[in-house]
Amino acid sequence: MENIRQAPIGVFDSGVGGLTVAREIMRQIPNERIVYFGDTARVPYGSKSKDTIIRFSRQIVHFLRTKGVKAVVIACNTASALALETLQPEVDIPIIGVVLPGARVAAETTKNGKIGVIATESTIESHLYNRVIQERNPNAQVFGKACPLFCPLVEEGWLKDPVTVEVANRYLEPLLATGIDTLVMGCTHYPLLRSTLREIMGDKVNLVNPAYETARELKALLEEKGLANDRQDIPADSMYQFYVSDAASKFQRFASSILPFDVDTTRLIHIEDY
Amino acid sequence: MENIRQAPIGVFDSGVGGLTVAREIMRQIPNERIVYFGDTARVPYGSKSKDTIIRFSRQIVHFLRTKGVKAVVIACNTASALALETLQPEVDIPIIGVVLPGARVAAETTKNGKIGVIATESTIESHLYNRVIQERNPNAQVFGKACPLFCPLVEEGWLKDPVTVEVANRYLEPLLATGIDTLVMGCTHYPLLRSTLREIMGDKVNLVNPAYETARELKALLEEKGLANDRQDIPADSMYQFYVSDAASKFQRFASSILPFDVDTTRLIHIEDY
Repeated sequence: MENIRQAPIGVFDSGVGGLTVAREIMRQIPNERIVYFGDTARVPYGSKSKDTIIRFSRQIVHFLRTKGVKAVVIACNTASALALETLQPEVDIPIIGVVLPGARVAAETTKNGKIGVIATESTIESHLYNRVIQERNPNAQVFGKACPLFCPLVEEGWLKDPVTVEVANRYLEPLLATGIDTLVMGCTHYPLLRSTLREIMGDKVNLVNPAYETARELKALLEEKGLANDRQDIPADSMYQFYVSDAASKFQRFASSILPFDVDTTRLIHIEDY
Repeated sequence: MENIRQAPIGVFDSGVGGLTVAREIMRQIPNERIVYFGDTARVPYGSKSKDTIIRFSRQIVHFLRTKGVKAVVIACNTASALALETLQPEVDIPIIGVVLPGARVAAETTKNGKIGVIATESTIESHLYNRVIQERNPNAQVFGKACPLFCPLVEEGWLKDPVTVEVANRYLEPLLATGIDTLVMGCTHYPLLRSTLREIMGDKVNLVNPAYETARELKALLEEKGLANDRQDIPADSMYQFYVSDAASKFQRFASSILPFDVDTTRLIHIEDY
């Protein structure tokens, strides 16, 4: 049997957004293998209930385990906010989400203690960002704002469109008014709107990308647990595997546009069987 | 056993949109009972593949049959376009969708033969509206346009917002340029944008609402098959039943805003078990 250190990392998301997290992991720990799953049949998660997100996430973790993963990254803010705490005690491998790493950095780097969080409805309603930030920094004030139109705008490809700028102005106005110095981009699609967000928030507000922080935390975790891959000679064709629950070819096009290489093969599975 | 004539009609949609169809059935055939199912755990369908839409729709028809329905209405354009033809031979009760009734009326009422169809990506890509319209009216020219941001805008409640007007202008511009005299609102959410669409298209373009046509066709079908309810004394509390696959309370609020009465009870089920 293969050494556990050479086993892949399981990374999953409700759809394509988590590829921004996968990309960051590929960049920061380039010799780790990745099995990515995008739940494109049931996307989006952002407006769905905790029970449903837990049920879906549990199926996905079961699926990823069949691929022999040594650790799991929930590369979806909504699933991290709603399902991570429930799933963690159910599995005997490390499982991390994107919310904690992003929240910790925001709590530690804010100067005026005022932090904005933009995310899906379900993530905002979970109040997990608030809880984690205030555990780390009890004086912090956290201002959350759900931005349900951002994902559809990104998927329409209108990244710098005047419509997107107007929607972003509308959503961000109340956050600007609070005088925040830090804004967490609490949904994996939002870093793709970074330049629009930057323009509206101005240069003084620090934009936190949880994908970056998550990859850092994953790297440290693998080293701490003795799970980091110590070999460099993994065959290229077994480095990255992509699975989806719907429309593999559409996913493949989007993946190829986000990742620094072409995605040749995406496999379609029935996730509800897991 | 109850007489089949008193059995309910099964009506389903990917989520809440199909309630605009249910409302029309309630208005036109007020003594028919309805069992409504909204697949809120897996909404939306509009960008998903044919195989997935068929699998989901088949589960829902199985579920509705457990409720003893005498007929099924697919109150979702995407599922009507992608799954109806496959499911029809699988069941021994009448099953109709919203595409055919809408397409037939458009084909029969156009004067200049130029018809626009706005719908989800998957509905447009299915080309079913084109096929049905041209079967009825071989000289018709059909111009389809996917409008993926309309559903999120409706669900955000921005029905007459300047952002929605701008998005609608963008989507409808190429249709306006073709000189269409008829526009099919080929997604159940779109009639909620009727006043914005009317303003952009002008008074001379006829807006076709498939919900209205579907309720008319259902009424005729029930009479023809001897299935129309011939009793007026159905107890009020068994008239309308609502089932969803996620977040029953959120659905209930939306349903109460669309329907002419308050929805007291919505039941949550695991649709993947059917």
